[in-house]
Amino acid sequence: MFEKEYDVIVVGGGHAGAEATAAAANMGSKTLLVTMNLQNIGQMSCNPAMGGIAKGQIVREIDALGGYSGIITDMSAIQFKMLNKSKGPAMWSPRAQNDRMRFAEEWRLALEGTPNVDFYQEMVSGVLVEKNNVVGVRTSLGIDIKSRAVVLTNGTFLNGLIHIGEKQFGGGRAGEKAATGITEQLVDYGFDSGRMKTGTPPRVDGRSLDYSVMIPQPGDIVPEKFSYTNTLPLNTQVDCHMTHTSELVHDLLREGFDRSPMFNGRIKSIGPRYCPSIEDKINRFADKDSHQIFVEPEGWKTVEVYVNGFSTSLPEDVQYRALKSVKGFENVKFFRPGYAIEYDYFPPTQLRHTLETKLVNNLYFAGQINGTTGYEEAASQGLMAGINAHLKINQKEPFILQRDEAYIGVLIDDLITKGTEEPYRMFTSRAEYRTLLRQDNADLRLTPKSFEIGLAKKDRLTRMEEKLKKSNDFIAFFKNTSVLPKDINPILESVSSAKVKQSDKMFKVFSRPKVTMEHMLQLEAVSKYASENSFDREVMEQTEIQVKYSGYIEKEKNNADKLHRLENVKIPEGFDYSKLKSLSHEAREKLNLIRPVTISQASRISGVSPSDISVLLVFMGR
Amino acid sequence: MFEKEYDVIVVGGGHAGAEATAAAANMGSKTLLVTMNLQNIGQMSCNPAMGGIAKGQIVREIDALGGYSGIITDMSAIQFKMLNKSKGPAMWSPRAQNDRMRFAEEWRLALEGTPNVDFYQEMVSGVLVEKNNVVGVRTSLGIDIKSRAVVLTNGTFLNGLIHIGEKQFGGGRAGEKAATGITEQLVDYGFDSGRMKTGTPPRVDGRSLDYSVMIPQPGDIVPEKFSYTNTLPLNTQVDCHMTHTSELVHDLLREGFDRSPMFNGRIKSIGPRYCPSIEDKINRFADKDSHQIFVEPEGWKTVEVYVNGFSTSLPEDVQYRALKSVKGFENVKFFRPGYAIEYDYFPPTQLRHTLETKLVNNLYFAGQINGTTGYEEAASQGLMAGINAHLKINQKEPFILQRDEAYIGVLIDDLITKGTEEPYRMFTSRAEYRTLLRQDNADLRLTPKSFEIGLAKKDRLTRMEEKLKKSNDFIAFFKNTSVLPKDINPILESVSSAKVKQSDKMFKVFSRPKVTMEHMLQLEAVSKYASENSFDREVMEQTEIQVKYSGYIEKEKNNADKLHRLENVKIPEGFDYSKLKSLSHEAREKLNLIRPVTISQASRISGVSPSDISVLLVFMGR
Repeated sequence: MFEKEYDVIVVGGGHAGAEATAAAANMGSKTLLVTMNLQNIGQMSCNPAMGGIAKGQIVREIDALGGYSGIITDMSAIQFKMLNKSKGPAMWSPRAQNDRMRFAEEWRLALEGTPNVDFYQEMVSGVLVEKNNVVGVRTSLGIDIKSRAVVLTNGTFLNGLIHIGEKQFGGGRAGEKAATGITEQLVDYGFDSGRMKTGTPPRVDGRSLDYSVMIPQPGDIVPEKFSYTNTLPLNTQVDCHMTHTSELVHDLLREGFDRSPMFNGRIKSIGPRYCPSIEDKINRFADKDSHQIFVEPEGWKTVEVYVNGFSTSLPEDVQYRALKSVKGFENVKFFRPGYAIEYDYFPPTQLRHTLETKLVNNLYFAGQINGTTGYEEAASQGLMAGINAHLKINQKEPFILQRDEAYIGVLIDDLITKGTEEPYRMFTSRAEYRTLLRQDNADLRLTPKSFEIGLAKKDRLTRMEEKLKKSNDFIAFFKNTSVLPKDINPILESVSSAKVKQSDKMFKVFSRPKVTMEHMLQLEAVSKYASENSFDREVMEQTEIQVKYSGYIEKEKNNADKLHRLENVKIPEGFDYSKLKSLSHEAREKLNLIRPVTISQASRISGVSPSDISVLLVFMGR
Repeated sequence: MFEKEYDVIVVGGGHAGAEATAAAANMGSKTLLVTMNLQNIGQMSCNPAMGGIAKGQIVREIDALGGYSGIITDMSAIQFKMLNKSKGPAMWSPRAQNDRMRFAEEWRLALEGTPNVDFYQEMVSGVLVEKNNVVGVRTSLGIDIKSRAVVLTNGTFLNGLIHIGEKQFGGGRAGEKAATGITEQLVDYGFDSGRMKTGTPPRVDGRSLDYSVMIPQPGDIVPEKFSYTNTLPLNTQVDCHMTHTSELVHDLLREGFDRSPMFNGRIKSIGPRYCPSIEDKINRFADKDSHQIFVEPEGWKTVEVYVNGFSTSLPEDVQYRALKSVKGFENVKFFRPGYAIEYDYFPPTQLRHTLETKLVNNLYFAGQINGTTGYEEAASQGLMAGINAHLKINQKEPFILQRDEAYIGVLIDDLITKGTEEPYRMFTSRAEYRTLLRQDNADLRLTPKSFEIGLAKKDRLTRMEEKLKKSNDFIAFFKNTSVLPKDINPILESVSSAKVKQSDKMFKVFSRPKVTMEHMLQLEAVSKYASENSFDREVMEQTEIQVKYSGYIEKEKNNADKLHRLENVKIPEGFDYSKLKSLSHEAREKLNLIRPVTISQASRISGVSPSDISVLLVFMGR
């Protein structure tokens, strides 16, 4: 019924599965996407938005690598914002609101339009393993489908259990079945599994809300976009709205606490710390008398809205009474209540940097199955798993991004080195070198690497090279061109910056804190040069950041280089730590468990101290 | 959590549920649509097409009454054909291929755009009944939602059981959960329930097919449309393709017969006779060595295609091997196998003409729950149930269409009078007066009636009245205008019709079999009159049909009038047939069971003979 043998089978069609499928197929692997319902590919199971702080950078990285998330986001966006624009460029984070239906439809069509992708609708109940190698999957109908690699991206579906108040029922998402069989099989095989929990707020009828008492949250006046390709920025946008909970709302919620599965012991698994339920928030921050609620439209035309900030698994009547007391929600009508969901995950310390499992060769895990939360985290893991599955079965070197190269590198290194006890989400603070990992330069950082392994196409590389050349030209222009006091001083005066006494290089003036590209463009020579060379927004932005932050960037690069020297000290596979009696007991145990491949990785394991690292370095001959 | 009391709750969001919701809400009832998954409203569970013989007429009737199916079909069509155009106009049947995703999206947006419609996502597990009156529904979370009427449109979801070969699993559709609780509760309440079966073919990857060896099936050169409103006809269309099974294919299918749930006794329920599975076809028509297969695209852009004519519940490997041997399918890739599904229905003799149940007041059933098959049959029942639920709770007269007024009248009268032992679908042959029930005049037949009860809006009525006036004017013009031999004879000669010797009324010439509107428009006086009065296609068509078929139409109208005289003889509610010893035993039994409301209805009950009818007429004083 199927190809004699696929190269790669991807199980699941969410953010992780869709990216894994696209990546493996675009690199040339015959790829089969198996999912329980082909109509549910690319679902945004929770909020209808992509990006945000650190997450937006990840989407830019996925795009730079040739993944689809950025393109799909642009095609289905209804609002765009560059967050943190008032801070340094390392903090700039793109975020989009999306049309939920359009997002899913564009994903499906994008995958259909990708050569080498086949589709099959059924539940996968287990993987086929021969001599520690995965050789395919088995479906619930008992069909064996052969492949050289398998990527599991099961999201919240593995033994998914939905909770609303005191009621529980099986399901992978509201209205969809749970998936069974895989966890049990892998645990039999020796994998550790655990349970995690996540939740989602009620969906309500936008027609029942009073927006006039809420604060409009419009998109950017000049919206940018996610993809480095030629997708279009929005020319019309839809507003979100903000409102707040109150003491009364909190009191009403507290009335349901004894029936809450979070507090009565029914849910034992840990939820996402930085995306807590509303009951968690009022419990943990008992002194706060108000929390923000963002009212997010679900699309261009639909009346359904998403109540961001009100995730809850309290009984539906409690949800209703409390939400009704939120300003603007007095007449709210529910489309469905919020709920919590518990699901199986596999502690990610069981993975290699490629996301391949250590126990079973050519078996890859990506997304929530690894204990992460977030569409962007999932998508990036899917992409990396898809890439590495393809490389592995073609006997090529693995594709691993370092911590100073990409948030994706930070994410995967954190996961496999430190593991995670609670749903892991990305923050800029998790990156040691975040000045390097900006949203503006993901293409410069990653597209050449991706081109080299055969994923990013030539036109992507050309586009990036042109941008790089142009911004380098522009920087050189600033370095080589002088400006007269009479021309620059009015500008400097306007920003209360000290006037110059004599002609000076433009670069030097531009480096001053308050002087922006916009100011420099007021100089005729600059605007003439820019327009003669048709520099676009991206070139201007890149140039400005390089000019103004070159010092910081240089410093971080040096730090990163030091890291790389450590990173280069490899630890032989199967190294026997028990021999090294001078290691602390804890370090021996953790090192034996995690099996780091470099000293650098070893140094990031919690419980491995600097003195343990010294012992290792000595032993490795450094 | 909900309105204190809704006027109408509709359970299910398929064709029946969506129309019921729209109708009740448009008439002014506060209406709640409850469905297991709000993302699945308006699903085409089986083929991506609307209309066809008799079914197309039903869609036109739904549209004429102010339902949405015609509009949604036009908005999501990818191909349009007027079937049977070579036969008389009573047989003309519009049919469209549709974009499955677009169809569902347009339905959802149409309902969202309808005032008085609320939405809620959850499984309904039972209805609330007090003193034989329905007073709401109970959800699986245990929420009671109150209403004055309830319409159940559960489709194939009630205890749905999916079969593929020897495997069975619960489900309402592939990848969706079954619904439980309602059947059990209603049976406890005294309802009879039964099981029916239906099936669907595999969905496959269009990229894997060789269309060059198939026969293209394009749409009409000048496509028409379904709705009488101002929806647009298509200006580009997508082709379908035809291929055939062969002896080899049949042999390969037969190899799986011992593992077929249809033949090994696992499926006991009866499937749709006129939409049989491929295994049924080769079993029942063993002498036929080939059956047609229509390859239908699932949308404008998707590569998924529907293999119409290959519905099957044979084991997936048998499906695959057999389909691979169909011309053009040599390299077929499956998206999913075909399957059969068994589900609960309630024999529709338990209903009144309004689709209200006899046992529980204000409880209505519509669609497959009544033992029908087909989107159009379901949609029309939903519409009628929605209308009658609204009328009933507002103490208004019921809205019942007679057998000479609409296919919808035939459908409902057949169902409640004769019941059905197998999935009921509409045919033109089921209508005694099909010359009256044409697709071209559904607006003339039904829009005034619908306007009167407050469903069809004024602009619909105005549009219909203008069409009627214009075609009457045109007919009068033909009746009053003479044509000279020199002008008409060349035309008559061109169609080998006898020449006229002297000037004659145009109407008389036009009435001749081979003379068409196109011919008449070659006469300058006619084309001048038509363009001066800006007659459109619909007016021309209506005029032509009225001129050329007036004799037949008149005759059927007379027959129908006779029927109405019988129809008018009402049988008192609660009439005790057991007193009438001169009735046959079978008639007494059936009459007591069905409880017809008129002599006419009594006459259509199988087992009630003409002599039984005479007995009744005598007793009623006729």
